[in-house]
Amino acid sequence: MESHDGMHASVRISGGQGSGKADNSFRAKDPLTVVIFGASGDLSKRKLIPALYHLEQTGYLPERYAVVGFSRTEMTDEAYRERMLDEMRQDFADVDAGSPLFGALHYQPGNNTDVESFHRLKARLDALDAERDLPGNRLFYLSVAPEFFTPIIHNLNAAGLIRNPEEPQWSHVIIEKPFGHDLRSAREMNEEVTGILDESQIYRIDHYLGKETVQNILSFRFGNAIFEPLFNQKYVENVQITVAETLGMEGRRGAFYDNAGALRDIVQNHMLQLLCLIAMEPPAAVEPVSIRDEKVKLLRALVPYGSPEEVRESTVRGQYGFGELRGDVVKGYRQEDGVDAMSTTETYVALRAKIDNWRWAGIPFVLRTGKRLRNRVSEIAVQFRHPPLRLFRQQAVPDGHAMAAASANVLILRIQPQEGISLSFACKRPGMQINLAKVNMDFMYEAFEQRSPEAYERLLLDAMRGDASLFTRSDEVDYAWRFTDSILSGWQELPAPRFPNYYPFTDGPDEADRLLLDSSTGWRQLSQMGIAEVGR
Amino acid sequence: MESHDGMHASVRISGGQGSGKADNSFRAKDPLTVVIFGASGDLSKRKLIPALYHLEQTGYLPERYAVVGFSRTEMTDEAYRERMLDEMRQDFADVDAGSPLFGALHYQPGNNTDVESFHRLKARLDALDAERDLPGNRLFYLSVAPEFFTPIIHNLNAAGLIRNPEEPQWSHVIIEKPFGHDLRSAREMNEEVTGILDESQIYRIDHYLGKETVQNILSFRFGNAIFEPLFNQKYVENVQITVAETLGMEGRRGAFYDNAGALRDIVQNHMLQLLCLIAMEPPAAVEPVSIRDEKVKLLRALVPYGSPEEVRESTVRGQYGFGELRGDVVKGYRQEDGVDAMSTTETYVALRAKIDNWRWAGIPFVLRTGKRLRNRVSEIAVQFRHPPLRLFRQQAVPDGHAMAAASANVLILRIQPQEGISLSFACKRPGMQINLAKVNMDFMYEAFEQRSPEAYERLLLDAMRGDASLFTRSDEVDYAWRFTDSILSGWQELPAPRFPNYYPFTDGPDEADRLLLDSSTGWRQLSQMGIAEVGR
Repeated sequence: MESHDGMHASVRISGGQGSGKADNSFRAKDPLTVVIFGASGDLSKRKLIPALYHLEQTGYLPERYAVVGFSRTEMTDEAYRERMLDEMRQDFADVDAGSPLFGALHYQPGNNTDVESFHRLKARLDALDAERDLPGNRLFYLSVAPEFFTPIIHNLNAAGLIRNPEEPQWSHVIIEKPFGHDLRSAREMNEEVTGILDESQIYRIDHYLGKETVQNILSFRFGNAIFEPLFNQKYVENVQITVAETLGMEGRRGAFYDNAGALRDIVQNHMLQLLCLIAMEPPAAVEPVSIRDEKVKLLRALVPYGSPEEVRESTVRGQYGFGELRGDVVKGYRQEDGVDAMSTTETYVALRAKIDNWRWAGIPFVLRTGKRLRNRVSEIAVQFRHPPLRLFRQQAVPDGHAMAAASANVLILRIQPQEGISLSFACKRPGMQINLAKVNMDFMYEAFEQRSPEAYERLLLDAMRGDASLFTRSDEVDYAWRFTDSILSGWQELPAPRFPNYYPFTDGPDEADRLLLDSSTGWRQLSQMGIAEVGR
Repeated sequence: MESHDGMHASVRISGGQGSGKADNSFRAKDPLTVVIFGASGDLSKRKLIPALYHLEQTGYLPERYAVVGFSRTEMTDEAYRERMLDEMRQDFADVDAGSPLFGALHYQPGNNTDVESFHRLKARLDALDAERDLPGNRLFYLSVAPEFFTPIIHNLNAAGLIRNPEEPQWSHVIIEKPFGHDLRSAREMNEEVTGILDESQIYRIDHYLGKETVQNILSFRFGNAIFEPLFNQKYVENVQITVAETLGMEGRRGAFYDNAGALRDIVQNHMLQLLCLIAMEPPAAVEPVSIRDEKVKLLRALVPYGSPEEVRESTVRGQYGFGELRGDVVKGYRQEDGVDAMSTTETYVALRAKIDNWRWAGIPFVLRTGKRLRNRVSEIAVQFRHPPLRLFRQQAVPDGHAMAAASANVLILRIQPQEGISLSFACKRPGMQINLAKVNMDFMYEAFEQRSPEAYERLLLDAMRGDASLFTRSDEVDYAWRFTDSILSGWQELPAPRFPNYYPFTDGPDEADRLLLDSSTGWRQLSQMGIAEVGR
């Protein structure tokens, strides 16, 4: 076995339009006001304002608009603008302070749970409408802790800020994750929210769906005729979805995380969404209802675990202990700030899911995610079966297993880092023997010499345009929680796992291997995925 | 439409053995003598001796062997060695004059049609056997004009140089192309040859089959599980096989060529072999009988044209006129040395073939080859159908046809230059719109940092080892001629074409387009294939 890197290969791209400027048909047309709750929070400063700025720079914002930040801190418009500009300058070297976005920025102090604040907000918005000749369309972005979701929606309603969906002026509400802590709380929240808002007014955001590579999953599957015939139980051995992080509990994250865990934080939303996109049937059309219907259909075929025993068999929990990185001690999870010293929260989870439908019956979908793993990488790997007949077997190399592994195809959709697509295939190694080598063809998204819009740009624009394709519908949330809940309740009845059970910067607990023992290939090794950042 | 070149991409290779040195199990084990008829000819000097030299250098030759050159010129062993060494030094900078190959080189003057010469040859070979402790295995290489094939075989037999196939010592005879001028002459030659030699002793060479990329066709098709399910009438729109040359009639080639034409010179052998490899069913095993059985089965499904009218509809003949290249006049075919000034020999042929079997019924296989075309390139392009549903249509770019072309996949197996494999697929272009771009993933054989054996090395070694997989069996030749003959006889009855009908360094006659008029894609443009060498 040997491996060569950085071989010569080239990628040519053709077709379609290439300009970085707005395609006019995708521009937000209705004048509107964006209201950001949690305006002084991290997400707002680091993602939302920059996203609006870039939408402005690339010409996607409507001709007239206003942005209003709302949070408790008392601040003038000018102070808010200055703060946002300073913040952006830290991340972007060439921020244009003269961008109309900064001129459109306003600030309104207030309390999320105080209805009076919302009456004042309404007065302010009405004044801005008059001042800026805006018709009253509103996009409310709830960038706040989940306990404030329903109070804010109640108060918006109480202050008359939610329009009837039949009115020409629209009110769209973007709700950040997490949507619920379990099935029960998610249903309660859904009931409260849908008691006030129409489903068409709700935009449950999962920023993963705004990523170019995630959106490309559907384009790739249904824009090509040659992959779809292979995406089924006849040709696929297993599908591996990995979301691996090298980070631990930076800053104040521990306190929140210890109450959530990897399953709620990553699997219930991001990973199940990836699962939907890679496994769903072709939609009747590329539009919100059809796409979300197919996702729900897939989630309905995703079998919840029926007993604690099944959960024990099909899931592996992990928690990192302390370790070392380049001579420095790295805290174990239980030593992190804000984490209970006896915490049994999982920082890693691997699971084996069944999709009981015609296409996928019997094919394991294995998902794993964790903190403090060897590499930062998110990818979907479709591991194909071996050829039905091993014609070239008699020419095998001494290590028969290596040969076997070499000859099964893998299609990788890599979401981060180095977004791209790889296909491995067997190819005759030059020489007298018929000796197959495994060769990778890679396509990197960076080959498009064109900036990819950030996930939040895409999603904000879609919410302005009323396109909910990339947002999660209430029934999607419900089915995703049904599945997740079956694991949570299984875990509750099982004996507490012996934590910690993996070292930082490894592939996670070895126990995860048993989820793929019946497969001819195990998990892809993190060291061979993405870019090795640490710990090697 | 735009196109980007030289994008970042990387290729990783793993699996299998990588050393350039001989794999011992593929080494020729039986001590032997190689006898080259036509020893002073071009092929011998430029290909065969270098091939033997490289086989020696890489350790594939047996421990003991001799090489005997046979031709009319009187020459000593030493003079022959010196001449071969000089010849090799012109092509290879670092020839090792101390290589055992040169010590094993001998020379025997003689006349191909004189049986006495063969008795002397036998005496010489017997003496060398004694001298070098060789058991009497012989590989006769007939690197001579076709009219000498049967005289030499007769004389070898008369001189007692052909062993019975049951004897432990073997006699293998490599016969160069062309094997026959038409069906009748091929059958006559087959009868004569098989009257003396057993089929197992005959090695009809087609050097195309020794090329790495040609051998890789089977490895690629049957070593991967994901391509074979797509290789059929359900997913393939058409298959295009191109062998394009930029050369005209260099040197004394015109005299030979004018009597052959593109159909006999390229289609009947090389291109039908490529057709077999890309279209045949999986063999039961990777061994000569199974592979050649499948090739014959394919050739039997290849439908000969039933009437001149059918030939007229399904083929296009071309002959180049004179033109200009960078200010210099380029001769037309009829002005070339040795060519009849009113010649109707085709220097270009395109044809549309039908394969009447379960897998390929209804799918056009289009073949084209020609001299003085725009590019030097040989490739097989499997053009896949469009996706059954054009989901992303409503997002179409202004030029709907470009969009359509962009979204159908093509798999290219490139034989020369830049041997490699490319797969084009649709991918979402970064941006707010869902806009598909056509992206190419390329794999280049040069990514293996390993020398590819020359075709003749491979084929000589196989003939020494008794592996006839890459040689043409008599029934293969017969079926290939049946098809070719149906065209030749059609042409004879049709009015003579109006020649010349294409300019040098173009894609050939425009008329070829009609062969793909019913297809959603036309011919691939030569300017987009391989490396543009001239005329742009």
